[in-house]
Amino acid sequence: MAVQHSQQWEQFDRLVRKIMSYYEAIGLLHWDLRTGAPRKGTEIRSETIGVLSTEAFKLQISEEMGQLLSFFAEPEQAEQLDDRKRRMIAEVRKMYDQSKSIPPERFQEYSILAAQSETKWEEAKKNSDFEGFEPYLTKIVAFKQEFIEYWGVKDTRYDTLLDMYEPDLTVEKVDAIFERLKARLVPLVHAIQESSFKPETAFLKQLFPKEQQEKFSLFLLEQMGYDFEAGRLDESVHPFATGLNPGDVRITTMYLPDDVLSAVFSSLHEGGHALYEQNIDKTLAGTPLSGGTSMGIHESQSRLWENMIGRSRPFWRRYFADLQQYFPEQLKEVDVEQFYLAANKVENSLIRIEADELTYNLHIIIRYEIEKMLFNEGLAVKDLPETWNAKYKEYLGIMPTNDGMGVLQDVHWSGGDFGYFASYSLGNMYAAQMLHTMRKELPNLDQLIEEGNLAPIKEWLTDKVYKYGKSEKPSEIIVRITGEELNPDYLADYLEEKYKEIYKL
Amino acid sequence: MAVQHSQQWEQFDRLVRKIMSYYEAIGLLHWDLRTGAPRKGTEIRSETIGVLSTEAFKLQISEEMGQLLSFFAEPEQAEQLDDRKRRMIAEVRKMYDQSKSIPPERFQEYSILAAQSETKWEEAKKNSDFEGFEPYLTKIVAFKQEFIEYWGVKDTRYDTLLDMYEPDLTVEKVDAIFERLKARLVPLVHAIQESSFKPETAFLKQLFPKEQQEKFSLFLLEQMGYDFEAGRLDESVHPFATGLNPGDVRITTMYLPDDVLSAVFSSLHEGGHALYEQNIDKTLAGTPLSGGTSMGIHESQSRLWENMIGRSRPFWRRYFADLQQYFPEQLKEVDVEQFYLAANKVENSLIRIEADELTYNLHIIIRYEIEKMLFNEGLAVKDLPETWNAKYKEYLGIMPTNDGMGVLQDVHWSGGDFGYFASYSLGNMYAAQMLHTMRKELPNLDQLIEEGNLAPIKEWLTDKVYKYGKSEKPSEIIVRITGEELNPDYLADYLEEKYKEIYKL
Repeated sequence: MAVQHSQQWEQFDRLVRKIMSYYEAIGLLHWDLRTGAPRKGTEIRSETIGVLSTEAFKLQISEEMGQLLSFFAEPEQAEQLDDRKRRMIAEVRKMYDQSKSIPPERFQEYSILAAQSETKWEEAKKNSDFEGFEPYLTKIVAFKQEFIEYWGVKDTRYDTLLDMYEPDLTVEKVDAIFERLKARLVPLVHAIQESSFKPETAFLKQLFPKEQQEKFSLFLLEQMGYDFEAGRLDESVHPFATGLNPGDVRITTMYLPDDVLSAVFSSLHEGGHALYEQNIDKTLAGTPLSGGTSMGIHESQSRLWENMIGRSRPFWRRYFADLQQYFPEQLKEVDVEQFYLAANKVENSLIRIEADELTYNLHIIIRYEIEKMLFNEGLAVKDLPETWNAKYKEYLGIMPTNDGMGVLQDVHWSGGDFGYFASYSLGNMYAAQMLHTMRKELPNLDQLIEEGNLAPIKEWLTDKVYKYGKSEKPSEIIVRITGEELNPDYLADYLEEKYKEIYKL
Repeated sequence: MAVQHSQQWEQFDRLVRKIMSYYEAIGLLHWDLRTGAPRKGTEIRSETIGVLSTEAFKLQISEEMGQLLSFFAEPEQAEQLDDRKRRMIAEVRKMYDQSKSIPPERFQEYSILAAQSETKWEEAKKNSDFEGFEPYLTKIVAFKQEFIEYWGVKDTRYDTLLDMYEPDLTVEKVDAIFERLKARLVPLVHAIQESSFKPETAFLKQLFPKEQQEKFSLFLLEQMGYDFEAGRLDESVHPFATGLNPGDVRITTMYLPDDVLSAVFSSLHEGGHALYEQNIDKTLAGTPLSGGTSMGIHESQSRLWENMIGRSRPFWRRYFADLQQYFPEQLKEVDVEQFYLAANKVENSLIRIEADELTYNLHIIIRYEIEKMLFNEGLAVKDLPETWNAKYKEYLGIMPTNDGMGVLQDVHWSGGDFGYFASYSLGNMYAAQMLHTMRKELPNLDQLIEEGNLAPIKEWLTDKVYKYGKSEKPSEIIVRITGEELNPDYLADYLEEKYKEIYKL
């Protein structure tokens, strides 16, 4: 029996590694499409991604996989598994159950469409051409509606999608959390708008040559402890991080020639994602546990580095002099406090990835509500621009003048990632709650940052979050670190304290 | 019956396209490994390449493929196939027969090894560390010896390998061709060595900044008609071209900061390969006929652009002024004739890819003879450096001072490409023979080149060679274009005429 058990385990391990090989190749094909693949090759490339995705999918739902999962579900086999193996089985079973419900030919069509759609979106965004993109998005949404049926409708149809990115998340919970956040943040945003204090930001809008921006991004990533022997930095229309394998975690950023902050904070953001994936325990490599445990926890790491560290006063007390060296002409008359205030200016704006960390949550709430309308309330894709613009008017008091700045700004929907956006605000909340504990355990945190000694932060996060990969669920992680469940008040406290000081409220 | 025929054809077409999708992904994984993949990810990356190669291999020898090939081999089915389909079937059957003979697990082990070995080779070349590379190469050779048994020994063991790259090529034929070439070229090389005329080349050895070299390479590729919307130029240790799909044909080059010619001619060379793949008839896309018909014909295209056009007097009469603009300081005192002579200096040297087009053939003969010794005469891998050095001493009168400049200089063996090198000289011969006909059909050829009007050359080659892909065999192509079989005298005539004039013999 023991021999059979270990043989079956070896077979399971081999099959899982094979599936992960497919995902590594698919990851590279996607990365390449978005960083420099020639235009004329993209159509066949999309088919190639479709073929490999289908094959990976078939392996996930293969008879062999079904038999292996059944084998390890038998009580006398299950009890021989240690915790890690049990978690691996659970992770694979979740994918198996999810995937098994979708007919393979539908999944293949969907994969090809999603790849084409992402390419189409890049063009559409550039040309602000929603009409050209609409047929693709309509098909993507129809597929997702169909998949929801296969997966099973939870409390509501949209609940099914939320649960994919953050296990056990529901519309009911998110509604409650967002209400509670709104109750504290909306008055704060309002008070800031009323405040007579306006940080000076004109100096941010000069010409900042791309080459210098790139060098500064590389410098910051090095400071964070990003390992360039296990990754690389490239440029793409929408910044992203992708872990091809634990030794190859790539990030991209975008350089706006007239805005020095965009690339800086994109790089810190994607760098945060990458630190997580680069520092997962090496013994998990090649297993399904070698990845971030949820989108929310992943986003907590990117937003912790981007905002809570990267937009802090101690951070710029240390690094502003470096930034000045990269842009001596542009910044010679700016001092660190001016820069700190400018980097934290709260302003109702159109572009999510350029939003300040306070109003950012409103951008998320808009997307969350629109997705709910699309999946639960029959909103048609063709009406998206109108709905989008109306929500921006309502929540932020401004409206995009074209769809490239509006409904087309984010890549997510083009790839079918509905239900993802909420994770960003969850990420903010996890991050603030973790930071609260980090401050207790590293009492000289601000001093470390101000000295540019970021290694202890990376080590603390590795020890508390990174190394576990998917070995623990989000709720287990947050409770283990902080002693309590996710609590939005930490984020509200953090934001109130920071912005009341800045805006002298 | 007709319905069954067309259904079976559709199934065949689908299966073939699926296999080609795997090869596109594998091609990208390789390209990435050699252009910028982070070091720490390469070990898992090698496994991934191994997994996908094995899957592609399994599809090629699948029962489904066997049944389809049997179906179309039935006389009443075969007679319904048009020429193109017949050729497709023949192409796939060749792969099937070749692959079917190798046990899949042996092939997987080989693929993983070959990927690791290429990475190891890059390091070994840099550090001139043959000992570190030897265990890999020994295993690669052992695998090839084993595969020769599976494929079947032809006249000699090495014949089996030659035939892989150039159908129907044999040791007997190559021996005869190389003897005939040697009989005309060796006296020529000797006369040149004796000649008192030595082109001035000191001006080539200055500092030529890499950025400018890259810009000039891009400029030349544009002049050739390389389509940057269907490809891109990157940098790698060993230049190569790779056709991922007909809309994505990438090339790489290498910039030596103290040598302006290396990148120029590498770019023209790889550009020639790429023009071939970019201009294959689009109706062949996704079929097994969408690729170069043989290594020899492929090399004829790279070497025709690199040498017969790129090292011609009219070419530099047109482009030297441009080169001067990119390097005004370095070249201000050089005139076009000096440059032409320098670019065609004949010199017994150590590095194949930097050799002049005359002695180049001796570099090939050395490799050909060593490969014959390895596979037919029991030469041990550990004795390669010694044999290599002795041959260089014998044929070229010089010896490398380290293995990085010697036996480790080429990538081919690290990936198991034994039998390939002969194609380079075949390529020279095909190219000279084609050029002879081209001059008759484009009587103002030199004038076109001198005007920088290269489009008619590309069109002529598209019409005569490129568009066919693998629809015709090498021997069919050369006979259709020139009216006769491959004849090494055209190359000898071309070289004699060119170099007697240059060296005033």
